[in-house]
Order: sequence, then structure tokens, then C-alpha cells
Amino acid sequence: MGSLGDFEFPQSNALLNIAGRASNDNPLDPEEFRRQGHMVIDFIADYYKNIEKYPVLSQVEPGYLKKRLPTSAPFYPESIETILGDVQDHIVPGITHWQSPNYFAYFPSSGSIAGFLGEMLATGFNVVGFNWMSSPAATELESIVMDWLGQMLRLPKSFLFSGNGGGVLQGTTCEAILCTLVAARDRTLRIIGNDNIGKLVVYCSDQTHCAFKKAAQIAGINPNNFRVIPTTLSTSFSMCPKALRNTITADVEAGLVPIFLLATVGTTSTTAVDPLGPLCDVAKDYGMWVHVDAAYAGSICICPEFRHFIDGVEGADSFSFNAHKWFFTTLDCCCLWVKDPSALTQSLSTDPEYLKNKATESKQVVDYKDWQLALSRRFRSLKLWLVLRSYGVEKLRGFLRSHVKMAKVFQGFVEADNRFEVVVPRNFANVCFRISPSAVMNKSSNGVLGEITNSNDISSPRTKTKMGMVNEVNQKLMESINGSGGIYMTHSVVGGIYLLRFAVGATLTQESHVIEAWNVVKQHAHAILNSIPTTQ
Amino acid sequence: MGSLGDFEFPQSNALLNIAGRASNDNPLDPEEFRRQGHMVIDFIADYYKNIEKYPVLSQVEPGYLKKRLPTSAPFYPESIETILGDVQDHIVPGITHWQSPNYFAYFPSSGSIAGFLGEMLATGFNVVGFNWMSSPAATELESIVMDWLGQMLRLPKSFLFSGNGGGVLQGTTCEAILCTLVAARDRTLRIIGNDNIGKLVVYCSDQTHCAFKKAAQIAGINPNNFRVIPTTLSTSFSMCPKALRNTITADVEAGLVPIFLLATVGTTSTTAVDPLGPLCDVAKDYGMWVHVDAAYAGSICICPEFRHFIDGVEGADSFSFNAHKWFFTTLDCCCLWVKDPSALTQSLSTDPEYLKNKATESKQVVDYKDWQLALSRRFRSLKLWLVLRSYGVEKLRGFLRSHVKMAKVFQGFVEADNRFEVVVPRNFANVCFRISPSAVMNKSSNGVLGEITNSNDISSPRTKTKMGMVNEVNQKLMESINGSGGIYMTHSVVGGIYLLRFAVGATLTQESHVIEAWNVVKQHAHAILNSIPTTQ
Repeated sequence: MGSLGDFEFPQSNALLNIAGRASNDNPLDPEEFRRQGHMVIDFIADYYKNIEKYPVLSQVEPGYLKKRLPTSAPFYPESIETILGDVQDHIVPGITHWQSPNYFAYFPSSGSIAGFLGEMLATGFNVVGFNWMSSPAATELESIVMDWLGQMLRLPKSFLFSGNGGGVLQGTTCEAILCTLVAARDRTLRIIGNDNIGKLVVYCSDQTHCAFKKAAQIAGINPNNFRVIPTTLSTSFSMCPKALRNTITADVEAGLVPIFLLATVGTTSTTAVDPLGPLCDVAKDYGMWVHVDAAYAGSICICPEFRHFIDGVEGADSFSFNAHKWFFTTLDCCCLWVKDPSALTQSLSTDPEYLKNKATESKQVVDYKDWQLALSRRFRSLKLWLVLRSYGVEKLRGFLRSHVKMAKVFQGFVEADNRFEVVVPRNFANVCFRISPSAVMNKSSNGVLGEITNSNDISSPRTKTKMGMVNEVNQKLMESINGSGGIYMTHSVVGGIYLLRFAVGATLTQESHVIEAWNVVKQHAHAILNSIPTTQ
Repeated sequence: MGSLGDFEFPQSNALLNIAGRASNDNPLDPEEFRRQGHMVIDFIADYYKNIEKYPVLSQVEPGYLKKRLPTSAPFYPESIETILGDVQDHIVPGITHWQSPNYFAYFPSSGSIAGFLGEMLATGFNVVGFNWMSSPAATELESIVMDWLGQMLRLPKSFLFSGNGGGVLQGTTCEAILCTLVAARDRTLRIIGNDNIGKLVVYCSDQTHCAFKKAAQIAGINPNNFRVIPTTLSTSFSMCPKALRNTITADVEAGLVPIFLLATVGTTSTTAVDPLGPLCDVAKDYGMWVHVDAAYAGSICICPEFRHFIDGVEGADSFSFNAHKWFFTTLDCCCLWVKDPSALTQSLSTDPEYLKNKATESKQVVDYKDWQLALSRRFRSLKLWLVLRSYGVEKLRGFLRSHVKMAKVFQGFVEADNRFEVVVPRNFANVCFRISPSAVMNKSSNGVLGEITNSNDISSPRTKTKMGMVNEVNQKLMESINGSGGIYMTHSVVGGIYLLRFAVGATLTQESHVIEAWNVVKQHAHAILNSIPTTQ
């Protein structure tokens, strides 16, 4: 470890070690910090060691914790030993174990040692890095790391600081979308006037994340002006540029003003990929802002063989992905790049007297408070820096490829079993599958499904439409699997099809877990298919 | 420590210890986690131990870090030893040490061992607690802790879950304000129609935090409808209810629609307190939403003798304070309570297929994603729970009172030295002071200030107004002190008066640091006053 830096405090009487002065009663006493910190490290290491002992999806009932905790805060201190005991006994049972190797739900929340350590350092320093001045390292490391990561993704130089764009760490994609939407909104309102806010229109597909609708709502976009382009199975649920153009044209003819398109690389339901190039071409014709949401799939575009999924990003105005999803960086850490930072800062800048300082006035520094919703901000770049350095580009690619490989293994199992089918082509490390309609129909006579026994969950009319039957069986499969606690998956419904999502990406997952997961799926499917009485 | 909880994973072949399977190459390998985790605990403990060796305000120049780091991410892994060495050599010099006992700037960012450990646990579990289902403990602990804290503040029961209101942990006050503003906006728009968004008006004082203006901008409130009530020194910069009423009346007469008042307890510049009762009475007459921003001062209202500062809160609709400011909880952690959670959820709810689940449908659970801007959320309640339990109500009150006591000591020094004056009465642990006009004038003849020597910073016309002279001297004092690195303070300007803020609250600060800080102030003031040439 290096020296303590260049600076020595000039007043010798202040060189006294803080430990020499602070009583042990100080809530930041260094030696007590050390003692308790080591205890919690061991606690968490043991948690990871034992994580497979817990049901992945928490099996508690609503209100479980209220029954176990007191109704008011303690008046006197309690020991860390007591508290950790309560964490183990009362909190752990109520946790859904996102770090479990048997976690295949939603998208991963892939932690890592490096990400954890970076978060520890940031928490230890506990600086409030709203502007450069308040902790120059926080701002400068963020800018540097965002350029590193932009290069790894081969983003166009126009998105990097080295090319007059720039990157910023937001908490979540929701925030990234809201910031860029507000920037786009105000860019137009500065031209047409604030009174015309009701004329602004925004666009997405029916597969776009719900964060966008919420952002539009928050930004005061008239709910009647929120356009959703329908997608279909035939195009794997990607947005159709022609349909987009037709919708925009109709809006413009109606006197409305299109301002923003949200395109997605890796949708939440099926990891569909919108065609960035053609969509940006349409948007360009109307002077619209295009934001590319690659929250999940952005990570893997650091691998050359996956980079083509963001081809066309050069036509967009902003791009984001979540390092806290599938990039080994703990929650929260959304990486956002914009071509025109001034569009953000024109909407989001503040300049109160109590924050004025010479560095800001020199215009030689970035003040990230003007790139985001909030004023205060954590030192998030530390964890991303530690992840990039601890693993390096090569290993990071290797980790991500191993997840894709495991998803391919699972896909192979599905394809080899004629009771199952893959619903949409797999792009990344998420397999969308279901018990196939033919497997369900074979169990019931002439398309009429008999009542499914042992079901408290599904309404059970004696006859249903074929699609309804198939969906019901698959919903029952998912609930049965998750209720067992062995593995955890989640579902979606696209084009009327209820599908199960098998998303590989938890850091501890290895191929053996995927093989075991497939056994679990098969066992539960077997039981459910056998519970369908044949009704001929 | 207790058992591993009730549940035992039913399939015995999955009971294999993860450490038995995972290679050391796994980025979440438990034993490697343990090894590196202990190293970083020691690193941070040593940082606290040595923190007084560093200049409080970082003394680096813009761009310092770019010169020290490579231009791209490493291709191959680097060791934690190398990385920690770089943190020490390159990051620490660029940090402004908010945890230093000599930090008196802005407001404190008071860390604690308990807050740190809670953050570690949350980072270790790394759950994404957007709804109840995704980790019941995260939601339930938050609701419980917010009721505990609400009781400690003696908030009216209508703000607690036990009284049909409820609390939520936001990241920052900025987010809390934006959420409540959007709720208030939509409550009105549901009645008067979305087309009338341009008629909505919001109110605050000229001392209100800039977060409110930014929130109004984001929420699409017409910038022309942002009303700022002027304050004066005569009322210690608190908002005048009569002036508010007059402004509202004029707006209503002009056909506009008042929707929201932001009242502050403990303003950023001078910790002024707006009169909540009378302001809420005015707002009530117009059906407006009142949010009380007690970001800084809320903490100390857990002490009975300070509780009166939030008297009248029962008339408000929402109340927030930052546990990450002056409540020993690391950044970020803003506590927000609302009387009517449905107002929030009506604006902020999302219900996509991929998040549907039976717990939500049962309406027996809280889904906090619908109480905040973003979908994803960290397990923030753990750190607050650890703070409340590790210290207990009694010690927490004691810590806060000790900071007030130290601020009183500093105030005594200022008052006893006739070269200085306290600018506004001290309410909490922040002293607003300056070199007095008489001390400056005594050094220059008949109100004409001679050129201040050795000043690169201040424009130096030969004559100035008296107020300009006094402000210039005080600005020079602050810059001189901060440039020394010994202590760090920040400034504000209120009613044309440039003042220095001495905010006590860093966790490691003890009375000896305050005494030493006053010596630093005196030394620099002496030098600056002596550098004013008499010009008779």
C-alpha cells in the first residue's frame, strides 16, 4: 500500500491521532469500527457460503416481521452481536436471495467482491459529491471510468468526454430516462414555449420498460400523448420503424410535437432488440431525442461478438445500461452517456449561493449535480473502478460469456424435450420457454382441458380457450417451482403467451446449478401434466 | 448469533456448500470475499485513525486524476493490494474529508459504525426490493423503522402506518420533494384536467433549497408560476404567512391554481425555521399540499426540547428529513412521511405483467416502487435500523445535544470577540458569523477601504460600498481558512450579507476541535484585518 499522500497537515498539534482523543463511545471510533467491521465481513462471507441452504424466494407471509420486532425503537444501545443474531433470525428468512446461484428471476443483480469493496470504500469516505469542489476525486474518477467503459462498449467518441459528450452514473435507469426526457422536453419548449407542453408526444413500444411511462408521467407529458407501438411475435417483439413513422406522421398532422423515442436493447420480458439504426433514422427526420435503454443487455456488448446488438447507437442522443444488473457492480449503478451534456445541464442545473465556488466558475470542471435529478450523490464510481480493475476486460468478458453458455445449455434441454418449447429466440443469457401447447393438448381431449386438480390458485372453469389452458398450465408450473424454494424464476406475458423466464447471471451460478434447475423444472412439469385428467 | 432460520432446503443434493463447488475464480467466492473484506475494513479503520493528517478540503487542481490514471481499463486483473495502494495515493488526495473532525462545511454527513455496517449488510444481500415480493424483509423493515422514527419525532399518528399514513426511504430530499410535488400536481389535474397544467402554481421562500425549483422544473410546472416569497433579516429569514396569502390571492384572482407550498425547518443558509402552523393554515384555505423539508434539522427534533421547531406539522401533508445528514446514517437516506400514501401511488404506480404477483394483488402489502421515482431500490432500512438499535434513543439524543453544545461554545467565542458578530440567532448546531462591519471600518478611514493586498481573488476597486467591503473581507477570510486545509467551512449570502457557516456535526468532532477551529479563524482574521491599509 502506498503512502498517505503528498500532504502533511501543517499544524503539528493537529497531528495527534484521533484514536488518542476519541473515547470509545464515539460512534465512529476507529478501533471499534475495526472490531465490528471484521465481524460483519465474516457474517456476510458465511452468508454466501451457506446461501444454498435458504429457499431462493422468501416463503414468509405478509406482516411476518411486525410480529417479531418491537413496536418502538430501543431507548438504550444494543450490541452488534444481538443485532447480527436478529439479522440472521428475522431478516434472512424474509430475503429473496438474489445472490443465490439458484436465482434465475427477473434480471440478475450480480454482486462481486470488487463491487462490494468499492461500495465499502465509498461508504467509508461518505462524501457528498454534488459538485467537483465537494470531492474532486469523486467527480474525476467518474468521468474517467465512464470514458473507459464507453471505449469498452465501442460507443461513438461523441458519447465520451474525450469527444465532447460524457458519461454520468445515475442510480437507476428510471432516473436516466427521466433526466434525458426532461432535457429533450425543455430543448423543444425553449423553442415553442412552455405553454405548449401539452402538445409534446413521446414514443416507445409495448415491450418498453414501465419506467418510461412513469418518467413521462413525472415530467408532465400529457398521458394522452404517450404512444405505444404494438409489437408481434413475428418480429420477436422488436419495434417496427415503419409503424413508428406512421404514428409520428399522424401526430404531426394533428398539430402535435414529437420529442422523444425510447428504444430498447434487451427488453424485460423477452430481451427483444429494437433496430436502432432504422429507428434513429425515423427520429432524426423529426428532430426527436432518442434514448437507448440497454439496462440488461448493455453489459455483454463489451464482447466483440455481441457488439452488433447496439449497432446504430451512433444515431442516438443517449445510451444507458445498469452495471448493477449484469456487470458485477452492486445496486445502484446506472451508466448513462449523452452526446450533448449541455442539454442535461440546461434543464437540471442549480446555482444557489451556498454552492458557489471558484472551480465551478472556472468552467474547467464537471458538476454532476447538474446531470441528475438530485443534488447529493454517492461516490459510485469507486465500485465500478474496482470491478474494472479487479477483473479486467478479459475476465469480465469471460464471466458474461459463461452465463450465455449456461443459458445455451438450458435452451438445449428445453429444445430436446418435446413437452417444452422456446418461445422467442434467445439473444443473451435469458431463455423464454414454456410447456408447449401440444403437450398440454395431448393430456386433454379435443382441446378441452379438464379441471386441474390441487389448484387453489387458478380459476377453474371446465372449459377454456386453448391459449388460456396453456397459459394456466404454465402459470401453475412457475408457481409450483417458486413455491418449492429450490430455484426462482419469473414470468411474463407477450402476445398473449404466458412464458417462463430463465435468466442466468447470478454471480455464483455454475453449470451444475443450471442442470439441477432443469431437473426441478422437469419434476414440477411432470407432476402438473400428470394432474391434467384426460376427459374423453 | 441465532440459527440459520427455519427453512432447510428440501433437496439434500443442493445442501452442498457453495465453497465446495465454486472455484476461487468466482468473483463472489466466500473465502476470497473474507480475505479482501478484512483488508478493506482495516484500510477504512486506518483512514479514520489518520484522518486529521489530511487537508479537510482537497487541495488538488482540476484534472489532477486524469494525469495519474491510464486512459483505458486494464485488460488483465489487478490485485486488491495494488488497487488499495492507488486509492491511498491517488483518490485520498482528491477527497474532501467529510468525516474529518475538522469538517464544518455545508451540513454534516455524519457517518457511524452502525450506519456503515448496515450499508455493508444491504450491499452483501444486494436485493432489489422494488416490491414486497422481491424481498419481504426489505419492505417490512422499512415500514417498521419509519413508524419507530415517526414516533421518536412525535409526528402525528396520521403520518404513520399505524394511522393510515406511512413512511418511505428515499435517496435524497430532492426525490422526496419531486414525488410529493407530482402527487399534489396530479391530485389537482385529475380534477381540472391535464390540459391545465400551465395554470398550476407552487410556493416557497427565497431561502428554500434549490431542490424545489429543480423539482418544479422536472415536474413541468411553468417556470413563470414558481413563486418565491422574500424574507428579511428582521424575521431571521423565515417565511411570512401574510406575504404568502397575498401572493396566493393574487394568483387565484389571475385564474391560476395554487397547489403546493414548500416550508422549511432549518434552511440551508442560516437554518431558519418557517412557521409551520400559520403557513399550513393559509395553504389549507386553498386546498394546497404542504411539504415540510426538515432535511437538516429534523434529526434533533427527537430531543423534546427541540420538538417545538416542527410544531404545526400536523397541518402538513408530508414531512421529510435526511438521516444521512445529521443522524449517523451513511448517504443516502431521506426519510419521507405522507398522510395520504394513495396520492403518491396514484401518480407513481406501475403494474407491468413481469412484476405481477399474488402478494400485490392481495393488497396486504406495500410495494415501495410506487412511493418513489425509480423502480429499483436498495435495502436502506437496514442501516437506519442498525443506527437506531446500536445507539438507542438516549444516546442519539446525547450525540445531537453534544453537537449543539459545541456550536454554543463556538458562538460564545464569536460573541466574546468584538471583531466578530453572529449574523442570525443560532437555532441548532450551525453558527452564522462574520467579521463585523465595525472591525472592518475601524481598519479603513471614513468608510473607504484601501486595496486589500495579496489578493488574487477579489476585484479591488479603490473604493467600495461599505457592505461590499465587509463582504469582501469575509470572503477573503473564508478562502484563506479553507485554503489552509486545517478546517473547512462554507459560506452563504443572505439579505446581502456574506456570512461564514460553522456547522458542527461531523461524528468525530470533539470540543477540542472546535476550540482549535476558533484559533484558526482568529489567526486568519488577524492576518486579513492587518492587511487592510489605513488610508487617511
